Amino acid sequence: MSAPASPLFRPDHRPADALRPTRITPNFVATAEGSVLIESGNTRVLCNATVEQGVPGWLRNSGRGWVTAEYGMLPRATLTRTPRESERGKVGGRTHEIQRLIGRSLRSVVDMKALGERTIILDCDVLQADGGTRTAAITGACVALALAINKLVTAGTLKTSPLRQMVAATSVGIVDGNILLDLAYEEDSRATVDMNVVMLANGGLVETQATAEKDSYSRRQLSDMLDYAEKGIHELLTAQRAILNTSV
Amino acid sequence: MSAPASPLFRPDHRPADALRPTRITPNFVATAEGSVLIESGNTRVLCNATVEQGVPGWLRNSGRGWVTAEYGMLPRATLTRTPRESERGKVGGRTHEIQRLIGRSLRSVVDMKALGERTIILDCDVLQADGGTRTAAITGACVALALAINKLVTAGTLKTSPLRQMVAATSVGIVDGNILLDLAYEEDSRATVDMNVVMLANGGLVETQATAEKDSYSRRQLSDMLDYAEKGIHELLTAQRAILNTSV
Amino acid sequence: MSAPASPLFRPDHRPADALRPTRITPNFVATAEGSVLIESGNTRVLCNATVEQGVPGWLRNSGRGWVTAEYGMLPRATLTRTPRESERGKVGGRTHEIQRLIGRSLRSVVDMKALGERTIILDCDVLQADGGTRTAAITGACVALALAINKLVTAGTLKTSPLRQMVAATSVGIVDGNILLDLAYEEDSRATVDMNVVMLANGGLVETQATAEKDSYSRRQLSDMLDYAEKGIHELLTAQRAILNTSV
Amino acid sequence: MSAPASPLFRPDHRPADALRPTRITPNFVATAEGSVLIESGNTRVLCNATVEQGVPGWLRNSGRGWVTAEYGMLPRATLTRTPRESERGKVGGRTHEIQRLIGRSLRSVVDMKALGERTIILDCDVLQADGGTRTAAITGACVALALAINKLVTAGTLKTSPLRQMVAATSVGIVDGNILLDLAYEEDSRATVDMNVVMLANGGLVETQATAEKDSYSRRQLSDMLDYAEKGIHELLTAQRAILNTSV
Amino acid sequence: MSAPASPLFRPDHRPADALRPTRITPNFVATAEGSVLIESGNTRVLCNATVEQGVPGWLRNSGRGWVTAEYGMLPRATLTRTPRESERGKVGGRTHEIQRLIGRSLRSVVDMKALGERTIILDCDVLQADGGTRTAAITGACVALALAINKLVTAGTLKTSPLRQMVAATSVGIVDGNILLDLAYEEDSRATVDMNVVMLANGGLVETQATAEKDSYSRRQLSDMLDYAEKGIHELLTAQRAILNTSV
Amino acid sequence: MSAPASPLFRPDHRPADALRPTRITPNFVATAEGSVLIESGNTRVLCNATVEQGVPGWLRNSGRGWVTAEYGMLPRATLTRTPRESERGKVGGRTHEIQRLIGRSLRSVVDMKALGERTIILDCDVLQADGGTRTAAITGACVALALAINKLVTAGTLKTSPLRQMVAATSVGIVDGNILLDLAYEEDSRATVDMNVVMLANGGLVETQATAEKDSYSRRQLSDMLDYAEKGIHELLTAQRAILNTSV
Repeated sequence: MSAPASPLFRPDHRPADALRPTRITPNFVATAEGSVLIESGNTRVLCNATVEQGVPGWLRNSGRGWVTAEYGMLPRATLTRTPRESERGKVGGRTHEIQRLIGRSLRSVVDMKALGERTIILDCDVLQADGGTRTAAITGACVALALAINKLVTAGTLKTSPLRQMVAATSVGIVDGNILLDLAYEEDSRATVDMNVVMLANGGLVETQATAEKDSYSRRQLSDMLDYAEKGIHELLTAQRAILNTSV
Repeated sequence: MSAPASPLFRPDHRPADALRPTRITPNFVATAEGSVLIESGNTRVLCNATVEQGVPGWLRNSGRGWVTAEYGMLPRATLTRTPRESERGKVGGRTHEIQRLIGRSLRSVVDMKALGERTIILDCDVLQADGGTRTAAITGACVALALAINKLVTAGTLKTSPLRQMVAATSVGIVDGNILLDLAYEEDSRATVDMNVVMLANGGLVETQATAEKDSYSRRQLSDMLDYAEKGIHELLTAQRAILNTSV
Repeated sequence: MSAPASPLFRPDHRPADALRPTRITPNFVATAEGSVLIESGNTRVLCNATVEQGVPGWLRNSGRGWVTAEYGMLPRATLTRTPRESERGKVGGRTHEIQRLIGRSLRSVVDMKALGERTIILDCDVLQADGGTRTAAITGACVALALAINKLVTAGTLKTSPLRQMVAATSVGIVDGNILLDLAYEEDSRATVDMNVVMLANGGLVETQATAEKDSYSRRQLSDMLDYAEKGIHELLTAQRAILNTSV
Repeated sequence: MSAPASPLFRPDHRPADALRPTRITPNFVATAEGSVLIESGNTRVLCNATVEQGVPGWLRNSGRGWVTAEYGMLPRATLTRTPRESERGKVGGRTHEIQRLIGRSLRSVVDMKALGERTIILDCDVLQADGGTRTAAITGACVALALAINKLVTAGTLKTSPLRQMVAATSVGIVDGNILLDLAYEEDSRATVDMNVVMLANGGLVETQATAEKDSYSRRQLSDMLDYAEKGIHELLTAQRAILNTSV
Repeated sequence: MSAPASPLFRPDHRPADALRPTRITPNFVATAEGSVLIESGNTRVLCNATVEQGVPGWLRNSGRGWVTAEYGMLPRATLTRTPRESERGKVGGRTHEIQRLIGRSLRSVVDMKALGERTIILDCDVLQADGGTRTAAITGACVALALAINKLVTAGTLKTSPLRQMVAATSVGIVDGNILLDLAYEEDSRATVDMNVVMLANGGLVETQATAEKDSYSRRQLSDMLDYAEKGIHELLTAQRAILNTSV
Repeated sequence: MSAPASPLFRPDHRPADALRPTRITPNFVATAEGSVLIESGNTRVLCNATVEQGVPGWLRNSGRGWVTAEYGMLPRATLTRTPRESERGKVGGRTHEIQRLIGRSLRSVVDMKALGERTIILDCDVLQADGGTRTAAITGACVALALAINKLVTAGTLKTSPLRQMVAATSVGIVDGNILLDLAYEEDSRATVDMNVVMLANGGLVETQATAEKDSYSRRQLSDMLDYAEKGIHELLTAQRAILNTSV
């Protein structure tokens, strides 16, 4: 691994391989089956899990469940107001891309047979955005999912939990040639490469997406970015566990 | 005024003419020019004010400003999930009705000449819904509006504040023949009459909307409902002032 | 009640508490189960009632019926052409607000159990607009509804009429400090307060909506406006009865 | 020409080559620059002309005007209710096809250079439908267009009329092997061939559209249908002239 | 018939009554039940037939089938890029008009009882456009339809072919007073009259649509245009047969 | 690198690290500035480049150009018909995700300053789909882009080519534990991991996206997949060069 950039490099003086302070507040709303507010620095995402009977048409009578996600951003989550997609009458490409990523990530940890013909929807709504909203959403939504599933198990609706393990995600990027973990918005806007990594508690990778914005990257840089990401995700998995151990 | 119903009548043992506990948290998000989280019992609405240069076409070159509102509800603000309007591709009738009410209410307290050709947008997003979201939105949005305008005045962008006075709102209804102030969802669903009142700090009325859901109401009942609403709104105006006196 | 403004005040020399000439033409189209053209001065609204088998999903198997309304305005109902909502691809907020008001008003007079699992749709289309289209629509739609229900009773489909009583509506406003009944467009555009009142034949109120456009109003003014409205609605109820007594 | 079918053949005992009674009421609404209610038997179409400054983008700075049409049907123009296109969020194929036909037909009689950079929109809204709505719309819209243009000439806005001549239209079809002029809905639904003909006052054809619904037709039948249509259109042109001679 | 215009008149030196070179390539894609690329000069349309179980709601349990068409144009089928209708969020009027014409034309040759409750969809997508795309689509789609039906018969799904005969189409127009068969785009843009003719193999007409763009046309010109069109369609029917005789 | 799977493993007997036969046909349509049909096995994608004056709003007066992509699939590109997005009225999430990927990939090779305020749109339309449509689209679109840019340079519109180097893409996946290059549809549907790699001619990576569908993957497997992808992309870059050297 290349030497981390000087700690003074980042606006908040974080070391290059350090996450922003992460806080997970369970049961943020009382109305959802599972609810979590995840804060990663100034990024704040509300993740709510809904359990519904039934599955989409192509799974009917298969005995299998489904997990999906929707992602939204409040108009003033951003420094300049973003018009509502409901007013524009259509969901944009960025939103589609993100909610598909969140959905795939969470499906990777659920045993659909054990879930049975139920659909769990993870609504991830960004209250305040400062970079890394999609990875924070994955990390938070997995806790909301676990809380909702715990309720089904506690209620006896499910005999065993269909949640096989936890999943978490973070971003990593290259700014001025330095690899940096968990980019805030200001760093992200200067990054030449932006990578999102989604990893299971057992270390297996489920998504790696590295995108060059202005420059390309080498195999070596890709490997270094993965090192940083793995370090960060291990910390996030620990934070998730801490919450779940203390939540009813 | 008819005698208030027994305090034991309401699920939370409130007197018939009592508001739910109201909490206004200023600067809930750091990204907006004015931001307030208003909580009225279990109802929680995030109100963010945006100041934009320019006005809609019909006001261009008039020297006058504009104030408008948008209202949204997160899918799990409710006990059963409400599909996103962005996914359905259109804004529903209830949403339209509510955001038009909020917009009119706030325009009633702004001197558009003094604002100049600027548009202030109030985004009111319901994080958790337990009745009275539209009136909470008006009360909270007026504080967000005041915070945003204060910044314009402090920055010297505006010489004097175009905010003429505060405005606040509450609901009142008739349940089992009893007039009750500030209905929670469970009460609202049993109400035969539902009324929203929007009132200025100087006591002037700007909106009174009384709707019979299952039965009609008399002139006398309308008058009694207004008495209750006025009492509640005076308390809300006091809460607004308290926040604005302590906010920068 | 405050003294009515001078008769010379109004463009058509009406007394302040006078309705415009109202004409109700039954069976305006032959294709609908109930059809009425209502004219209130230059405002002309075509109200057609449709009876359909079945009810919306949430009422299925409840044994109860449903009444709803849709409102439209022909592009040249107005002095400058209004683009079609079908071309714009969405129904606007004003339309939503109005058709919800019409629907609620008519539901207040129908016994849904007696109607059974049928839906009655009231289409209210404005052919020419000169203020007061929503209240004219309610008054006219109630006659169309009565005509359609009469047919169901005559045909023996319904044993007794589910129409409990008639409902009618009018507007009242404050112009230059004077309370005026049944505002025409030119008066409405100068009004500081605009109020719609929907009242049952038995005098019960089902909707009162008073909106301040540029100024606020007092409790006393609200009461005076209600006096005017009640007077006007009594005349409209008489006109409705005259038509129904002579229609088959 | 083949022998006309027996007069007893048609539901209303019309001869095969007879139009239904046609009535043209000018100035049906007072709000439009030109307004006509055309009734052809039970078919009733309200045709309103709007004159707007400016032209679509591709004609800007060409010195040429534009004429276009929009067509709509009220939900209860038909015996079973047709849902609104505004509610469905899109304009259907049939509507598109009809309004393009009306627009082309009217453009054929207007000198666009003489009109100058103005757009005339013909709104054709069907109040009651009994077959032949598109041809009635063309015949009525041409009168509305003439009325609107007359106003521009009278006002001195245009020095000479850009209306070169009148245009009118009718339908003809084959039912049970018989050629019939001006089909009512019941006849149209049994027709094997349906033809619309649009013809100028000078006898020139601008649209002939003959569609076989269940069977094909011969060149000879096409020629006979044109004979019937020409006869009918001459009568419609006479009716148009009568109205324009007596209208201001 | 009037004398054909000089052969030198047309950009490609075709005689006035000559088709452009037409090529029909069967099985252009392997994924569809029937697939044809038809090329008419530089116009290239891909016609694919899909056979689906079931019929639209109004035909359910009627024992009858349905045939419909959809038409699209790739953005760069044209010399200047045409924005996608999927991006604009709605299907335009021209597209609707064309796909309705194609659908009607093909329904005229199918015995819906013999087809049974199946729907055949003809997708006609223009890869390159040089005039006459709708008539090329009809001619090509009929071959794709025949190929798909042949598969159903070969597979034993259908005992006898529901295809009663072939149908083909071409365009004809008047340019500078000359009647010309099968207009290319450049000719079409100069034409004063544009006609589409759809004819059965047995000579029966199923659609004749003659539209004057800038001038009107006489009965005599209409008859001459039909002569040209019939000549061209006979050649197209021969080309269709040649392909079907050599295709499996 | 792990040993390649037995050549007999794949439906078409390809070695595990072999591309499908790739064919690039330049100038497939004559209407576009740059046009390429790329075939990768049975996958066939038509890539057309459009050069338009001007740039999106946020780049106006920046002196910089823009490159974007749109992706579509004909309804019968697939074995079962996929409804048109234009009929559904909205562009789906998968389409959005793909066209964003294509756009980013092509922007990585264009010098936007040298392009100036022009927009190049790459329309990638799938005529037949058998897996790998998005990577084929990138590889083909880069050739279409080069052809369009060459025309601008030849015409003297641009002094030097803003195309810095070529970019190409392929897919790789894990099926039954074996790494396979360039998955066909049948293989893709059985894959547990699916990866897309976009690489520059100089070996720099611009996109790596590895998604686990049913299982996770290790760092080692990720590295092996990259080895395969690099091998394939080198061959694609050679194929691109061959076409460009022989095209005018």
